Amino acid sequence: MTQLRSARDGIITPQMTKVAELEECEPEFIRAGIADGNIIIPFNKKRTAASVCGIGKGLKTKVNANIGTSADLNDIDGEIAKLKAAEHAGADAVMDLSTGGDLRAIRKKIVEEARVTLGSVPIYEAVVTANSNKRSIKDITSDDLINAVKTHCEDGIDFLTIHCGITLDLLKVLKECKRVCGVVSRGGSFLVEWMTKHNRENPYYERFDEVVSIMREYDATLSLGDGMRPGALADAFDRVQLHELNVLAELVQRANDKDVQVVVEGPGHVPINQIPAQMKLQKELCKGAPFYVLGPIVTDVAPGYDHITSAIGGAIAASHGADFLCYVTPTEHLSLPKAEHVREGVVAAKIAAHAADLAKGIKSAWKWDYDMSQLRRKRDWEGQLATCIDPDRAKSLRESCMPNDQKVCSMCADLCVFKVADES
Amino acid sequence: MTQLRSARDGIITPQMTKVAELEECEPEFIRAGIADGNIIIPFNKKRTAASVCGIGKGLKTKVNANIGTSADLNDIDGEIAKLKAAEHAGADAVMDLSTGGDLRAIRKKIVEEARVTLGSVPIYEAVVTANSNKRSIKDITSDDLINAVKTHCEDGIDFLTIHCGITLDLLKVLKECKRVCGVVSRGGSFLVEWMTKHNRENPYYERFDEVVSIMREYDATLSLGDGMRPGALADAFDRVQLHELNVLAELVQRANDKDVQVVVEGPGHVPINQIPAQMKLQKELCKGAPFYVLGPIVTDVAPGYDHITSAIGGAIAASHGADFLCYVTPTEHLSLPKAEHVREGVVAAKIAAHAADLAKGIKSAWKWDYDMSQLRRKRDWEGQLATCIDPDRAKSLRESCMPNDQKVCSMCADLCVFKVADES
Repeated sequence: MTQLRSARDGIITPQMTKVAELEECEPEFIRAGIADGNIIIPFNKKRTAASVCGIGKGLKTKVNANIGTSADLNDIDGEIAKLKAAEHAGADAVMDLSTGGDLRAIRKKIVEEARVTLGSVPIYEAVVTANSNKRSIKDITSDDLINAVKTHCEDGIDFLTIHCGITLDLLKVLKECKRVCGVVSRGGSFLVEWMTKHNRENPYYERFDEVVSIMREYDATLSLGDGMRPGALADAFDRVQLHELNVLAELVQRANDKDVQVVVEGPGHVPINQIPAQMKLQKELCKGAPFYVLGPIVTDVAPGYDHITSAIGGAIAASHGADFLCYVTPTEHLSLPKAEHVREGVVAAKIAAHAADLAKGIKSAWKWDYDMSQLRRKRDWEGQLATCIDPDRAKSLRESCMPNDQKVCSMCADLCVFKVADES
Repeated sequence: MTQLRSARDGIITPQMTKVAELEECEPEFIRAGIADGNIIIPFNKKRTAASVCGIGKGLKTKVNANIGTSADLNDIDGEIAKLKAAEHAGADAVMDLSTGGDLRAIRKKIVEEARVTLGSVPIYEAVVTANSNKRSIKDITSDDLINAVKTHCEDGIDFLTIHCGITLDLLKVLKECKRVCGVVSRGGSFLVEWMTKHNRENPYYERFDEVVSIMREYDATLSLGDGMRPGALADAFDRVQLHELNVLAELVQRANDKDVQVVVEGPGHVPINQIPAQMKLQKELCKGAPFYVLGPIVTDVAPGYDHITSAIGGAIAASHGADFLCYVTPTEHLSLPKAEHVREGVVAAKIAAHAADLAKGIKSAWKWDYDMSQLRRKRDWEGQLATCIDPDRAKSLRESCMPNDQKVCSMCADLCVFKVADES
């Protein structure tokens, strides 16, 4: 049994009940959403002691934080610190994107330490293993790629990003479209290289049913990677991107038919005016499958501030239907993030998600803002600091310039509009 | 002669020529936009050695930074440091909102030091002067309020925020609507108190023609304050806000008819899904007058991060027609900002403005992103750091974790997609 099979059989699982509790809705709403393929609960049967998280239609927008080593910085304690920073800041999911060191040992440690939903990208392991054995991408077999999926499932990963939509047909379109930044998905770039060097179809497409049956065994959720996402605003919404999305729409159906839950990944670098149409298109094509956007980043020129460029894009995307936001940290395009950057990235993405939830009309989101505004009006500082999204940061900024009158703040002092109103 | 009178007489002023240069368009486009009341160049005849800045239809979105003392922190050197931080980060305008210390001395120093367009709120001076003379708001006369406008014009301020739209009729509506946060505009709250205590009409409304003729003398631009802007999401788009906007629409016409340029101020705290309609409404009602938004902030719960909540709102607002974004700093709702917070606030607002300019299809904005993407594709790190929005910050984040291979970054190291593409 998988969550999807249960839902279709009319069974409400303990995970559905828990998600309903968290979302303040009826379990039947969750069951029906899963049965329709519009809600997912990524929860590998091998996971224990983890929290559950529902993603999709009618639910609060969720946030994922990417962590992981690289060849330049391979420190497992550092990764655990990032995991804890992400969880503390309120991430709903964490993806381990490690590409340096002993990947399996790192992954196992993260699975052991994490409370949140976990994701990964199995192809990294196939490539990094080949590299570390002084073998090239040409030496990687189709079986190596499929086996990586099995290993990640076995280790308890809840959702796996697999770039199944890159086909030989797509590579022709890619060649025709003169992109500024080409392929910027790491997994996508490996597959393009593999397919080109072998002159063969993508094993994740060709052997899709096999991939799905492995995932079904563990009830792992398939995150359909967008290997062709634009990496520059100039490349957004081109034939390459659309071709892949069209393939993904086919695969959503095929995976769902085999009782495997699916989320679809989306861009990327996208100008603001394209975001609503991108969301609408995905939702229509993929029959309401949950949409997981990587940003989107709304300008190319702000490295150092991509937590902000992606908060702008993420808020717009989610208010137009995206369900799951992958954070971006301030170090994107510059360096591997540290725990402090992970914290900043998660908070920015949580703000975007919450702002979108207000736009979506989620009741608990409105209650939070209403409560906060009432505390503000009453000049209840203790209450405001306890209620806001990051009490530590708010407290430290308030204390950076304290007022003489503790009931106001140093911006307006005695001219505080609420004080004026109270005293007039 | 004023810029508006000249434009209507078919005359292209040196300021129009300069703005056309900066915007990479024809001077005639600027002249026609000013004549229609859709573009402004706030430039007080008393200003010398200042840069000019055009705001409105078809132009790049501009950013304003608020600085100024409060009773709790009154340090003129600190304010000059904030002015310099704002200019360095790329602010197009700065407003001096001082409410502590010798306001005129501070203002004169800022006028002397500033290169950018300058704004202020004259009513603060009337109120602070009364307070410091141990007089109450009841002792302030109608003439005091009008004289403050004259003084600010005489000191060379380019645009003055005056809350002309608060009328006795409006106060009735305010009483009927049970707002969570009432009136959060400082100038608005003073006027409400003054009008209530005197039981008299707002002098800035009653003596509007007088206000306009003072401003005409200096060619100061009238920024029609939104005293009733919502200060909580729960208060957004209510009858109070709409009533005031309707009065402002009348006053835009009356000021323009007297050759005075006008910009209209807007909200405030607004949920994402309301922003497009708010922009559309203002533009239609006010016949295309430039729109100057204060944020908008898209959630109430994120003090400490209101540079981000307002970057989200500002980007959406500007991409739907707002022309001028008032920044918000991380210390909003918590304390008076310091220079570092001013810098952060300006950069966040510049990102929002630029992201909106891409959505608006501004050609120079697209060229910037295109150039940046090409440098990124080429892995030209020196070029990227020189071209991005904040080279110092990008450099420091890159150096926080340097790669072994200087041609990549430590996020992906040898697996850099651009390196893989170059070498395959």
